[in-house]
Amino acid sequence: MSHQPVDIDTILAQVRVALAAGEWDRAVALIESLRPPDQADLFGELPPEEQVALLPRLDVEDSAAILAELEDSEAAELALRLDTEDLARILDEMEPDEAADVLGDIPPAQAVQVLSVMEEADEVEPLLAHPDETAGGLMTRPTITLRQEMTAEEAIAYLRRIAPDSETVYYLFVVDEEGRLVGVVSLRQLIVASPTTPIRDIMDPEVIHVHAGADQEEAARLMSRYGLLALPVVDDDERLLGIITHDDLVAVLEDEATEDFQRLGASEPLDEPYLDTPIMKMFRKRVGWLLLLFVAETFTGTVLRHFEHELSEAVALAFFVPLLIGTGGNAGSQVASAIIRSLALGEVTFRHILLLMWREIRTALLLGAAMGVIGFFRALTWHSPANLAYTVGVSLCAIVLWAAIIGSAMPLIASRLRIDPAVISAPALTTLVDATGLLIYFLIARAIMGL
Amino acid sequence: MSHQPVDIDTILAQVRVALAAGEWDRAVALIESLRPPDQADLFGELPPEEQVALLPRLDVEDSAAILAELEDSEAAELALRLDTEDLARILDEMEPDEAADVLGDIPPAQAVQVLSVMEEADEVEPLLAHPDETAGGLMTRPTITLRQEMTAEEAIAYLRRIAPDSETVYYLFVVDEEGRLVGVVSLRQLIVASPTTPIRDIMDPEVIHVHAGADQEEAARLMSRYGLLALPVVDDDERLLGIITHDDLVAVLEDEATEDFQRLGASEPLDEPYLDTPIMKMFRKRVGWLLLLFVAETFTGTVLRHFEHELSEAVALAFFVPLLIGTGGNAGSQVASAIIRSLALGEVTFRHILLLMWREIRTALLLGAAMGVIGFFRALTWHSPANLAYTVGVSLCAIVLWAAIIGSAMPLIASRLRIDPAVISAPALTTLVDATGLLIYFLIARAIMGL
Repeated sequence: MSHQPVDIDTILAQVRVALAAGEWDRAVALIESLRPPDQADLFGELPPEEQVALLPRLDVEDSAAILAELEDSEAAELALRLDTEDLARILDEMEPDEAADVLGDIPPAQAVQVLSVMEEADEVEPLLAHPDETAGGLMTRPTITLRQEMTAEEAIAYLRRIAPDSETVYYLFVVDEEGRLVGVVSLRQLIVASPTTPIRDIMDPEVIHVHAGADQEEAARLMSRYGLLALPVVDDDERLLGIITHDDLVAVLEDEATEDFQRLGASEPLDEPYLDTPIMKMFRKRVGWLLLLFVAETFTGTVLRHFEHELSEAVALAFFVPLLIGTGGNAGSQVASAIIRSLALGEVTFRHILLLMWREIRTALLLGAAMGVIGFFRALTWHSPANLAYTVGVSLCAIVLWAAIIGSAMPLIASRLRIDPAVISAPALTTLVDATGLLIYFLIARAIMGL
Repeated sequence: MSHQPVDIDTILAQVRVALAAGEWDRAVALIESLRPPDQADLFGELPPEEQVALLPRLDVEDSAAILAELEDSEAAELALRLDTEDLARILDEMEPDEAADVLGDIPPAQAVQVLSVMEEADEVEPLLAHPDETAGGLMTRPTITLRQEMTAEEAIAYLRRIAPDSETVYYLFVVDEEGRLVGVVSLRQLIVASPTTPIRDIMDPEVIHVHAGADQEEAARLMSRYGLLALPVVDDDERLLGIITHDDLVAVLEDEATEDFQRLGASEPLDEPYLDTPIMKMFRKRVGWLLLLFVAETFTGTVLRHFEHELSEAVALAFFVPLLIGTGGNAGSQVASAIIRSLALGEVTFRHILLLMWREIRTALLLGAAMGVIGFFRALTWHSPANLAYTVGVSLCAIVLWAAIIGSAMPLIASRLRIDPAVISAPALTTLVDATGLLIYFLIARAIMGL
């Protein structure tokens, strides 16, 4: 009776058998039995020539849903191989914002040609002007707007007449004669209201909205904070240009989390799904950071060379080097990742810097004391002389404290300078803490061991 | 005309002035002029005694919204200080899932007392049985269910009569006489359908649903994948227990991303917002990992002690230790963070392990070659003898390759063993790569330099 996600691999195997036998109708029937996201997953596993041959044979609604669900790069590649006529027919069936995304990813000459054949060109063309990462780039055109003078009954009859095929009708936006946004009414309010009430009396005149040029993150933050299913997008004159729907919100939240995550791992964000990223692109995204961190890390060598005399006097000092800088790096990562995430969620801002550092310094004193005591005894079990064990214990405590100071200050200062705090990623911090931590260690060794 | 988020600090200052002058009505009016998330933010800045005094004076709908918007720990603290009568009145106004969340966070004896006074106790009590992190713990009770025999017109009239005050009506679930889930119809479909059509003919009988005991992440994944505004939750007999709504989806997605992020930073997830976490709790969440990594890192000392002879023969070998293990750690983090995030997004699974490792090995060969050449020349500029420079170059290449192998295999194996791959966090990997990287370095040094 009810339905759980299917095992795509089983259906894929059946589709492959059907295609190998040239049974196009059976392959089409198998694919049409799935839901769009599953259709897209299956489709992505087929070779390009079979994708091009299959797509126009599917029901146009399914073709549109598949093209919308595919990753941007896959959709563009497929669109490039389709006939202009076929592509126009499929794009006409898609939501205008999704059609615009596909057209934005193929060469402009082909896009112009396709638009000239599309019936919905008027809906899609204005969306092409907005950059991808802005609110305007996410929006779709509202299928229906209401006027204040309508009654609830008239509005429902109007809805029924237009019979919009999208889920964008749960919030209905009200505009004046200039097209300016003046209110919002939910479909629920419309149903529950007495039929003759004018829209003016039901609508909420204070509509949360966003400007078309705003960053997509700002739009996502507003929707998530206020629990909105749809967010209206306006131009400089407050005219309603389009709406951003809840599925875009989820996509933006996931993209932003992925970007921060990759930066924390010392890599440029990949922009596309992992498996779709070519090896050379992965190399390019990573080599810059790796080199930069390598150069930064060479300062550790400079510090060590500076203390060459101490090292040759007491080779045992070297045994603790990775342990000390590793612990400093870990302590710094803990602090930085907590603060970077709090900044991303909007829980803290630069003005909390003193409060945050004070919290982190107190936590680090507890952690440093614990690590120092344990490090002291660990050093003794390696038969180190007592003064070396003291050096290790005191250094651990000092390095954990120092790492917390750097780990809390750097992301906050970055956010103040409008650099993404995730760029000051854990490995970058680690590298800084490594070199300065060594300096702390050898200065303490010199003082305690009298080298 | 339309409305943008307000500057809470300005209103907060005005509220403080009003409270200091004992003008409760003015403070109440200022707070009621805001939207619930902003009200909650402002509320959280007030001292506890003022919160307790203010909450019962607000409109009960606003009090309910504030209590729902506050962080769990703040809400529980406030609930504890309220009169049983006041608290029951406010909880009656909240969505049942949110009321259950508050009751679950206060001592059971008090919760029982409050429930005995609540009008909506029947709605809330069944929800208390479900653990927080399951689908059942997220769900709310559906205010309305339909039957297959109803017509579209009857269903709309029914909706209008009940006049549900929540946004949960955009998907209406259809149940049979046993309460089993048999279909779903969207409010849009209901409006657009011809009035006399029976629900049976409009509804989709294949409803994506989730079991009450399923993990909340599974529920979020289904909603995000299929673009659902609401997901029905059923018991073992497929009876409809409740629904999960889109605002819960956003909260789960953010929580899961935060957890992964903190694990990548080598800390247990904090469970509550950064600024609300007490210092001792931060210490406890971090000290375990820091100690575990410290113990693991002591193997680096074991490796170094093992090569004490080589180190005293050529102290210059030590200069490159942090550089080599740092680069290995960074290369491993890049790989692991990309794969952990792909696993979290469901882009890859364990069955891709060979494909993934092959991709990572090829990328690592490119990166390792680049780093090896640069490392070789860097070593020469430090006036290292040629055989030491060779050792450094070859070791860098080998360590980057080795880090990629560990960094790709470990998260995938963890996911196979049903351990959260983010637990195999970047620092844990770094620590493993450090010790094995040193071993590689000294073995290569022994071979090339003949020590």
